[in-house]
Amino acid sequence: MVSEQIPESNVDVLIIGAGPAGLMAAAWMAHCGVKARIVDKRNTKIFCGQADGLQCRSLEIFDSLGFADRAWKEANHMIEICMWNPGSDGVIRRSDRIPDTIVGLSRFQQIVLHQGRIERFFLENIKKHSDDAIRVERGVLPESLEIDESQVDDDAAYPVTVKLRQLSDDEAAPPQAANASKVPDGLFRSNLVQHDDEEDLIGRSKARAGESEIVHAKYVIGCDGARSWTRRQLGFELHGEATDFIWGVMDIIPITDFPDIRMRCAIHSAENGSLMVIPRENRLVRLYIQLKEVTPDASGRADRSKITPELIFGAAQKILSPYKIDYEYCDWWTAYQIGQRVGTSFDAHSRVFLAGDAVHTHSPKAGQGMNVSMQDTFNLGWKVALAAKGIAKRDILATYQSERRRVAQDLIEFDQRFSRLFSGRPAKDVMDAEGVSMDVFKDAFLKGNLFASGLSVNYGPSTLVVKPGDALEQGDGSKVVKSAAVAVSEADFARKQALAAGLPVGMRFNSFKVLNQACARPWHFQERLKADGRFRVVLFAGNVLDAGQKARVDRFAAQLDAPSSFLRRATPPGKPVDSVVEVLTIHSAKRTETELLRDFPDILHPYDAHLGWDYNKVFVDDESYHEGFGDAYKNYGVDRQRGAVVVVRPDQYVAWVGDLEDFEDLQKYFEGCLVLGRHAANGVNGHANGTNGTNGVNGANGTSLPVR
Amino acid sequence: MVSEQIPESNVDVLIIGAGPAGLMAAAWMAHCGVKARIVDKRNTKIFCGQADGLQCRSLEIFDSLGFADRAWKEANHMIEICMWNPGSDGVIRRSDRIPDTIVGLSRFQQIVLHQGRIERFFLENIKKHSDDAIRVERGVLPESLEIDESQVDDDAAYPVTVKLRQLSDDEAAPPQAANASKVPDGLFRSNLVQHDDEEDLIGRSKARAGESEIVHAKYVIGCDGARSWTRRQLGFELHGEATDFIWGVMDIIPITDFPDIRMRCAIHSAENGSLMVIPRENRLVRLYIQLKEVTPDASGRADRSKITPELIFGAAQKILSPYKIDYEYCDWWTAYQIGQRVGTSFDAHSRVFLAGDAVHTHSPKAGQGMNVSMQDTFNLGWKVALAAKGIAKRDILATYQSERRRVAQDLIEFDQRFSRLFSGRPAKDVMDAEGVSMDVFKDAFLKGNLFASGLSVNYGPSTLVVKPGDALEQGDGSKVVKSAAVAVSEADFARKQALAAGLPVGMRFNSFKVLNQACARPWHFQERLKADGRFRVVLFAGNVLDAGQKARVDRFAAQLDAPSSFLRRATPPGKPVDSVVEVLTIHSAKRTETELLRDFPDILHPYDAHLGWDYNKVFVDDESYHEGFGDAYKNYGVDRQRGAVVVVRPDQYVAWVGDLEDFEDLQKYFEGCLVLGRHAANGVNGHANGTNGTNGVNGANGTSLPVR
Repeated sequence: MVSEQIPESNVDVLIIGAGPAGLMAAAWMAHCGVKARIVDKRNTKIFCGQADGLQCRSLEIFDSLGFADRAWKEANHMIEICMWNPGSDGVIRRSDRIPDTIVGLSRFQQIVLHQGRIERFFLENIKKHSDDAIRVERGVLPESLEIDESQVDDDAAYPVTVKLRQLSDDEAAPPQAANASKVPDGLFRSNLVQHDDEEDLIGRSKARAGESEIVHAKYVIGCDGARSWTRRQLGFELHGEATDFIWGVMDIIPITDFPDIRMRCAIHSAENGSLMVIPRENRLVRLYIQLKEVTPDASGRADRSKITPELIFGAAQKILSPYKIDYEYCDWWTAYQIGQRVGTSFDAHSRVFLAGDAVHTHSPKAGQGMNVSMQDTFNLGWKVALAAKGIAKRDILATYQSERRRVAQDLIEFDQRFSRLFSGRPAKDVMDAEGVSMDVFKDAFLKGNLFASGLSVNYGPSTLVVKPGDALEQGDGSKVVKSAAVAVSEADFARKQALAAGLPVGMRFNSFKVLNQACARPWHFQERLKADGRFRVVLFAGNVLDAGQKARVDRFAAQLDAPSSFLRRATPPGKPVDSVVEVLTIHSAKRTETELLRDFPDILHPYDAHLGWDYNKVFVDDESYHEGFGDAYKNYGVDRQRGAVVVVRPDQYVAWVGDLEDFEDLQKYFEGCLVLGRHAANGVNGHANGTNGTNGVNGANGTSLPVR
Repeated sequence: MVSEQIPESNVDVLIIGAGPAGLMAAAWMAHCGVKARIVDKRNTKIFCGQADGLQCRSLEIFDSLGFADRAWKEANHMIEICMWNPGSDGVIRRSDRIPDTIVGLSRFQQIVLHQGRIERFFLENIKKHSDDAIRVERGVLPESLEIDESQVDDDAAYPVTVKLRQLSDDEAAPPQAANASKVPDGLFRSNLVQHDDEEDLIGRSKARAGESEIVHAKYVIGCDGARSWTRRQLGFELHGEATDFIWGVMDIIPITDFPDIRMRCAIHSAENGSLMVIPRENRLVRLYIQLKEVTPDASGRADRSKITPELIFGAAQKILSPYKIDYEYCDWWTAYQIGQRVGTSFDAHSRVFLAGDAVHTHSPKAGQGMNVSMQDTFNLGWKVALAAKGIAKRDILATYQSERRRVAQDLIEFDQRFSRLFSGRPAKDVMDAEGVSMDVFKDAFLKGNLFASGLSVNYGPSTLVVKPGDALEQGDGSKVVKSAAVAVSEADFARKQALAAGLPVGMRFNSFKVLNQACARPWHFQERLKADGRFRVVLFAGNVLDAGQKARVDRFAAQLDAPSSFLRRATPPGKPVDSVVEVLTIHSAKRTETELLRDFPDILHPYDAHLGWDYNKVFVDDESYHEGFGDAYKNYGVDRQRGAVVVVRPDQYVAWVGDLEDFEDLQKYFEGCLVLGRHAANGVNGHANGTNGTNGVNGANGTSLPVR
């Protein structure tokens, strides 16, 4: 082929790596309508093995994207954890049962489903929401990455240049059956493998001419795994240690008399190591098996060639003895050496970001890897999308590292503690100081369960989260932008937080059932917080049938409706008033005594000349006919009479809490993070006039209906 | 084209018509693995309008097929019915609110979703479960149908011969915009249209040569609508009357100050007629509008040309006054004359069957049409499938007409009463005998709600339903096979029914939550009654930790496991023992004190040499961690200590109730309806030896595990 000019193009966001973290980032771009591309060097999807645990928070996120129900339906549900420990005779016995998910924490519980299915849900969701504009480009290798530092602060610039090369099919499919076994061998992706197939790919690829292109991107997100090419281009490192613990993993259909094979089990044998049982879909069970017979050499690396399915399964049989276990079908197996590492930085110039395994690696047994990785880009994606669209200030991008690197640090700490306890020999008695006390282990498990749910995450103060305290200390220790305009003292904050004590600022907006005022349908309120890139102001309107409270609500609504309000100024000209910030109302009066058009100002259920009023904005905390009483005010800790106002970020985290009289602070919050237009008076904002109640139908007297 | 030999082929089941009834029949064939074809004369699917209400029972059925969740997610949920009536001043006011679905009746409530989406769910489900073998063949017109009466009793014969012709694309797409309106005009399918586009099709089609074929079928199911070609070929008729009531229908996005526009409303105006509001998905609302200005002529037919969207909407505006209503977007409209008719026969020689609109027509307002039609073929499909496969005796086919024609008769009676009350002028006061009393209307509505849920259906005695009484009287009055072997007296039956008082024989198996014994996962028990053509024996095992009760369970299990049992004899050689009849167990001991392998005989959780034990057969009525306590024994009316045995038909109807000692009666039930093989002793049944506990692992002592 004759060498031609290499084609060049611009894209808002380039995502490198199409695993769960990369797909989550792409999903945000699809849902927010951002021009994006996602490339992956491999041309094959995952068909077996890999990560499979989905924690509560991941399911809540999937629901905000629209596919939690698919995962929930297909997955195995993890209900109970059984602890098995040796008795004084050395024989293992069930010592405890605890619920796998802490009761009452979320409307979802932890489930297990093959990563390949999850990636499939993402692909279909991205296709649907991007109108097929965003597709994973497979067999595409990045070859160089450059950041033009002179342009990184220019909103209009495309300062990151990446050279991509399309691989041949042959190049992009690495061999999977390393051990000539009939079963797919997961070792080819294990951290026990020292050579890097990517280096091979690049080496081979460089020999060929053509099929390259240059991409200029506003933002690049590197989700390219533990050996991240993007990370190496940036010169960032993973800091941390490998341990001496080697574990094997097998996905089998077990034939066994062990009674808890369909429970999640943590089994400590007296002398033969530990084993974890993870029951899966389609009769499969995953076993995590400690390999006491394999130890790292002087260099700290284990000898991969010794590790076979027979060796791993033999270890499992010893641990489970006197129970018998066998299998005829094995779906996948691998082995890994536990290591815990965190990236030195997640962010280069707020233009190139790293996420997922590229910046944190740890033991897979707590089922955290895929979840934390997806949650990295669930945190990052909307920020990048809103910055790329010019809706949010670029400042907010600094919160990604402070929020997520802190989570990675916490994760590693959790994993170190948990792995030590799980890989250690059980103590023979209270005098056995070298052994692991099973009481301590159980306690760690219980505490770990909250962490493992993903629901203990609590982001520190920043321009996006209005709370007091030291931003560095509550973050990862790196710089974070904290808006001076919305600074808050400990005392002031405590007063405001008390208005909605069940909605701690910095944590995810918990979910309880409320009813749609117009149709009485019950919704988990979180179902109304869809991942579409919108901030939300949740107005707990209190008892709107009380004249005094009604006056407070009317005053707040009038401020929202004013041309100078953040709501009007955030709305691009000609767009609906809920395009950037959506106002949702939950009131506490009796549903049947309240009427949408009579009791709520128009701005709370905007009028559209083509579609009439919006019947999906106002909810009520009342009893349902068929689904009980959510008791949302009580559960959110909000006064039923007087209400409160809460800001929710696009990723469902609580950003601000205040009173109905705190409009000025609310305005400052949005001035701190959004790019607001000028006052929307005089019809500049095409929608302003249509919704301020003067042109619409007035429900109270039934006059002035628009004529067709 | 040169005339060639017309191709001939055999098929087990030919379905004519691919609306909801036909698709339901095809779904059964796909789920049961029966060779089937489904043809439809039109080449277009439905994109708007038509039926849209889904009652509880239809959703339960969808769940048994695997797609209720899709309908539930997309649909509008109907929560409350508001009644509006004129006050003494003649102005309409809300007089009552009642729940749309009776509380506690089902785990589903009534929803509204476009028929086109429902058909799509069916098509995808049929494709998946038939491995793409069953596809709707569109643009295919049946031209002749012959039944060879000499062969109708021969199990191996294909006695029905149908000639089919493939239409050109042009022929198969009827014009939809009859009135030159921009909006699709539903009148082309309305019963106000007197000419029949099918006759046109046939006429045009006959002029062309070629593209015909001859199909020999074991069974034909005619689901080809109110003007059913199949019905006419059989010489059967629809008996009944048209009324003088003419109604219009519009699907619009309303712009209105009427406060209950997102509720289901029944509105009686003082003088302008009645209106029903059905809120739908995507901001649409359907209005059923009484057209008092249009009346049938002397021939009993209304003049179609007078009916326009303007006329219909004008009537709606008058009825809703003083509230204003308008619209910019109309999705669909039509009009119809209420008529109530039932087919004279549903069944020709138990070889050709009619279902759906082909055998019953009525008013659409109660949302029954699509539901009852789908339920016709949900009743028929498994019977035909099992007969075609040689699993069930052909006798059972006679129950289709006795069961479903009776439902159609009840439906027409309900519709007559309901339509009269709804189309009548409201009474001015108690002395106004000609008007309709609004109290009577509300009462009818409340009672109608149970009927409308689809859950009041109660099938009479037959070879499939063991209960006392007159089979003719409890059926449609036609002949029905009642097995002499399983006759039961009123007194005996009352005693047996009392063992499971919450599971009335002849009605659908109600659903409560139970937990899987092996993994503690909660399931609505109905979720375990999938539509796969299997009968089920539900063993309420009671308190298995009590030695006496355990002995009863062991004895019952030993009878099940014997080579002479119906379970063994119904199982085809070499197939798993749960292929035709599945045994499911619900016990009442504490889950955590019970162990699957220790406390339950193997036959209740069969062992397979490749897959180990089956962990999905034994359930427990105990508290869950996250989803409450189903209290299934109490709700099913079963004694927690002693239990009971219940037979469930493949369509989830309760067929037989007995005690653990009534094995002989149970055996007779299956001898009455299934084709049982010889005794499965001596290894004739490939599976018998593998599951009788002697070759499997014995959980109690942990020995004799099969070696890989």
